[in-house]
Formats: sequence, structure tokens, C-alpha cells
Amino acid sequence: MAQQHLDPTDPVARPVTGDALAGYLRAQATEFLRALRLHREAGGTAAGANGAGEPVDAARALRRSVRRISGSLHTFRPLLDADWSERMRPELAWLSGTLALEYACQARLERLLLALHRLSGSAADFPAQAGTRTEAATDRGNLTVGAAKAGALLDRQLTLARTRAHSTALQALGSSRFHAVADNIAVLASEVPLVKTATVTDLRPLATAAEERLTDAVTALPLVTAGHPYNAEALIHGLSPDPAPHPQDTPWHQVRLLLRLHRYAREVLYGETAPVDVRLLAAGQALDRHRDASEAAAAAAQAARTPRIAPATAYALGVLHADQRHEVEGARFAFQRAWQKEAVSTS
Amino acid sequence: MAQQHLDPTDPVARPVTGDALAGYLRAQATEFLRALRLHREAGGTAAGANGAGEPVDAARALRRSVRRISGSLHTFRPLLDADWSERMRPELAWLSGTLALEYACQARLERLLLALHRLSGSAADFPAQAGTRTEAATDRGNLTVGAAKAGALLDRQLTLARTRAHSTALQALGSSRFHAVADNIAVLASEVPLVKTATVTDLRPLATAAEERLTDAVTALPLVTAGHPYNAEALIHGLSPDPAPHPQDTPWHQVRLLLRLHRYAREVLYGETAPVDVRLLAAGQALDRHRDASEAAAAAAQAARTPRIAPATAYALGVLHADQRHEVEGARFAFQRAWQKEAVSTS
Repeated sequence: MAQQHLDPTDPVARPVTGDALAGYLRAQATEFLRALRLHREAGGTAAGANGAGEPVDAARALRRSVRRISGSLHTFRPLLDADWSERMRPELAWLSGTLALEYACQARLERLLLALHRLSGSAADFPAQAGTRTEAATDRGNLTVGAAKAGALLDRQLTLARTRAHSTALQALGSSRFHAVADNIAVLASEVPLVKTATVTDLRPLATAAEERLTDAVTALPLVTAGHPYNAEALIHGLSPDPAPHPQDTPWHQVRLLLRLHRYAREVLYGETAPVDVRLLAAGQALDRHRDASEAAAAAAQAARTPRIAPATAYALGVLHADQRHEVEGARFAFQRAWQKEAVSTS
Repeated sequence: MAQQHLDPTDPVARPVTGDALAGYLRAQATEFLRALRLHREAGGTAAGANGAGEPVDAARALRRSVRRISGSLHTFRPLLDADWSERMRPELAWLSGTLALEYACQARLERLLLALHRLSGSAADFPAQAGTRTEAATDRGNLTVGAAKAGALLDRQLTLARTRAHSTALQALGSSRFHAVADNIAVLASEVPLVKTATVTDLRPLATAAEERLTDAVTALPLVTAGHPYNAEALIHGLSPDPAPHPQDTPWHQVRLLLRLHRYAREVLYGETAPVDVRLLAAGQALDRHRDASEAAAAAAQAARTPRIAPATAYALGVLHADQRHEVEGARFAFQRAWQKEAVSTS
């Protein structure tokens, strides 16, 4: 590709036009159709359920292409047919959200069980031993019993949530709403509805605007605090009665989404062979970890509200919640570190 | 004093002999007697109970001088009459431990209530509101109720422990065992039982040996791990059934004591007007915080073992425990930072 290794901040670089966007959208649409075929061949029943194998890969590829199409429609909106674009965007958001939920439940459960395992030392093995351990409970063993019971409780709750998400996803993939989206994407694979001026319009100002939205949002983050380790900010209000006790997470989640849009815009400009920006990669991974730990902490707090649980179970869930909020704080520190590093030149 | 600003690592500096040790011990013994008089004048009944005022200052001054006499007897043992020294040391350790306990209970309670307050946001005000909040409990409010109840429980348990420690300290101060120690210290204020060679013996090798015991112990600490923020080491095994789940804390506590002995040895060499070594000061404060947070975390875990507590209370205690273990980890990071700083020249 001619525009490969192009730097959007470089004023002398040659313009990248709507053709590049059309090529990118066609490639993503083709990828979507391929993943959908794979998913259907695998019966579609096991997507994400086993955490490995082809159906999972197919489901991941579906999510991946939907996010990229959706993101590109957002960033490069002026180059695309407005009616078509406005119709597509909520449908892609619905599909993306529906497909992501099952995977998120599974990942959350794995994260929480892994953390419980770490917190319990080598003695505990959940949730299988919960019953056995209860019988042998002594005062000394209460904490481990609590950890095992907490693991069993989370396993029950998050497996149920995942099963529901799986059913919802299956229903969605069989719905007429989905077929309409898939038909639209199939059309996109051959014919992208660009506006007439698109082939002579430079994409770079739109990509730069996406990057600026990201940098503006990052500037608004409390990065100075985040750069001081053990600032204890993430656990503040951890016992607050507020049903959404961590509004402090929201701007970080927002930056995560803007970082993703910026990354997709770079893919449009530079093509598949774009050099990996390790700084963006590290920053993005830190924000993924931030989101995962934030949601895992919320799941632990939610499980602690289950009626009639044993105090030892509640105690373990409290430790687990705080541990995950600690991870949230650590992820912010990691993001701050990654972000402050000198931007790697992409030219 | 002639030996002021002397650097024990400086081979050309003039020797410091047993006279300096005798002067230091006399001064500390005099300080002990002054503090004891103040303590008796104040009735001795309120020591530490209100967290402020003269009796507290007197009790602190008593602890302070006992620790210094005890530490100097340890570090400069060869210069002191062996029989006298061996008789005194266990008595000083007993006195120091007895006097410290009440203060420790009070400080632990304050630390834990402060942490609960921070964790609950501005909504909670413990332990007073525990009752009121319970009546108005909704699902949303459960966590705050838990925090308030946890605060009330800790208040009850640690106040009881402090009251017992206070009685024990009062009994100790009225005992014949104490009077024997006080008499010995009174003698020390005028006549220090030095060995005959003490006035021509150089103290510096003994002080250097104390410093080497410190640096050896620091070398054995996991400082590389401690220097990586959010390593999650301090909370490992936080739910383990081991009754002493944090043997990892022990070498840090040991370094804290060795650092103190090193500091007292410096006071003997340099006198009262010794320049403050900010590096040692910061390292010592980090280790004090490490010890306080470690013991506060243990108190929260212990409170969670109280029979028949509500799950919300146990949950709050779990969050609190993890929060304090997080503080332990933060204190190790702070110590690592302070220790790695270039040693400030004392000359």
C-alpha cells in the first residue's frame, strides 16, 4: 500500500483518501462473513463456553470485525452515506454488546477465581473443595472455607450470567434483526456507500480529530495521582452506599474506547501492515486490565449482597473486592507509565 | 561535644570512647526520671487514654528513654559491666513492651477507623451511626451498615484490649519489679557501670557492627519486588488458613528494630545535636507504617473471626484487611525508595 508508514501528523506526507477507508471496510466485512461461516459450521453452540477452540476464535473474530466497522463508521462519518451510516451504527453497537457479554462473564469468573487462588495460598482449590472444607472447619480454617465458598458462589453466579448471555447471543444470531445487519455487512464487503467526494477527501484530519479526542480525554485523567504508587484512590468509597460507587472509573473506560477508535483509525490509514505502536499497545492493555478489574471488583461486591451467605464468605469477597480495586489502581499506574513514554515514531 | 559530626565510616576521624556512652546513658536515665515524675504528678491514670496531653507525653518520654537505654546496652555491651547489663536487659525489654502495648492498641484503633472512614466516603460516621443505619438498611445501604458495624466491633475489641493494657501498665508501674528497674536507672543517672577499659575503648567498631547488622538484614529483603509497585505480594495468602499468614512481614519488622539500634548508636556517637539523616528518618517512618499496617490488618482479620457477626460486617472487615495489607505493600515500596537514595553524608 502506498500510504503505508504514513504519519498523520507529518504535513508533507501524501493524503489518504476514501479509497483506503473503502478497502478497510471491505476487508473487515469479508472477515465478518468468514467468521460468521466458521461460527455456523461449529454449530454456534459453544461460543466462548470452553474458553478455547474454533467457536471461540470465530466469536472473537466476529466481535473484532464488528468493533472495527462500527469504529470506522464513527471516525470517518463524513465520508459515508449519512442515512446508511446512521441506520447501521446502533445495530452494530447492539451486536457488539451482545457478542461481548458471554466472553466478559467467562473472563470475569476466571479472573476472580485466579485471584482467590492467589489470596488463599496453595491450600485452597476451588470451588470443588468447598463442601469438604466446611466439614473440617476450624477457627483457623474459616478463612479458607470462606475463600472456597466465595469461589463456589461466584462460579454459580457468573456461570449463570454467562449461560444467559450465551442464550441471548444465540437468539440474537438467529434473529431477523441480526440477518438485516449481516445482509448490510455482506453488501459492505463488495460495495462501500461512500459519499461522492470521498475519493478526493483526505482522511487524515478525521483521524487526527480522533487522536485529539483521545489526548484531550487523557489530559483530563488524574495522571499525577495515578503516577504515585499506592495512592489508595481506587478503593476510596469502596464501602460507600452508592450503587455506582466508582464513578472515578468512568473517564478511564472512556479513554479506553477512544484509544481503540484511534487504533482503528491508524489501521485505516496505514493498512494491515502498519508498524505496531508499542506505547499504544501497552496503554491499551493497561486500560483493558483496568476495565476487567473494575468489573470483577463490582461482581465480588455484588456477590457479597447475596442473602444468607456465611460471614467467612462475605469476608473473602471483601478481600477479593479490595484486591481487584487494587488491580484497578495498578492498571492506572501502568497506563500512566506507558502514556508518559516518548511516542514511538510511526514513520 | 568534640565528637559531634563524626563519621564512623571515616578512618581519620578521632575515636569516640566509653565516655560518650556514659554521657548518653546518664542523659537518657535523667530523662527517664523526669518523665516518671511527670507521669506520677499527672496521676498516671490517663496515660495514652485520651491520645493527647501531658500524661501521654510523659508515657511517650518513658518509652523513648527505656528503648534508648535498652538499645545502647545491646550495641555497646562489651563496654558495660556484664553482670549488671545482663540483669538489666530483660527488665528493660519487659518495661518497654508493657509501656508500648496501650499506645499500640490506641494507634491501631485510630488507624482502622480512619481507614474505614476513607473507604466509606463521607456518608458514614462511626461508630455512632451504626444503630440508626441498621434501621434504615436497604440493599444499597448494606455496605455502609457493614462499615459502621465493623467500626463499632473494632472499637469494642480494641478499646477492651487497650483498657487491659492500661491496667497492666499501671500494675507494672506500681510493682516491686518496676521499682527495682527504676532504682537501677536512677543509679545510672549518676554512675554508669563501665568496664575499666571503656574510657580508652573506641565505640566506633561497635556502632559499625550495628550498622552492618542492619545493612545485612536489608540486603536479605526482597527489595527488587518491593520496588515494583502493585506487585500484590503483601496480600498473598491473605485468605490462607495459616494462623500467622504473613511470615513475609517478619524480616521487615527485624530491619525496623535494627534500624532503630543503628539510629541510637548514631546518637551515642554524635550526641543530641547530631544532624538528622533524612534517609534513615524516611526509611524508619516507612517501617513504622509497615508494622502498624501489618498489625492493623491482623486485627481486622481477627475481628472477622468473631462469632455471629453479620455478613456485611465481615465483608467490610475483609475490605479493611486487604486495604491495610495494601498499606503494608506501599510501606515496603516507600522503604525501598528511601533506602536506595544516596546516603547523606553526616560529616
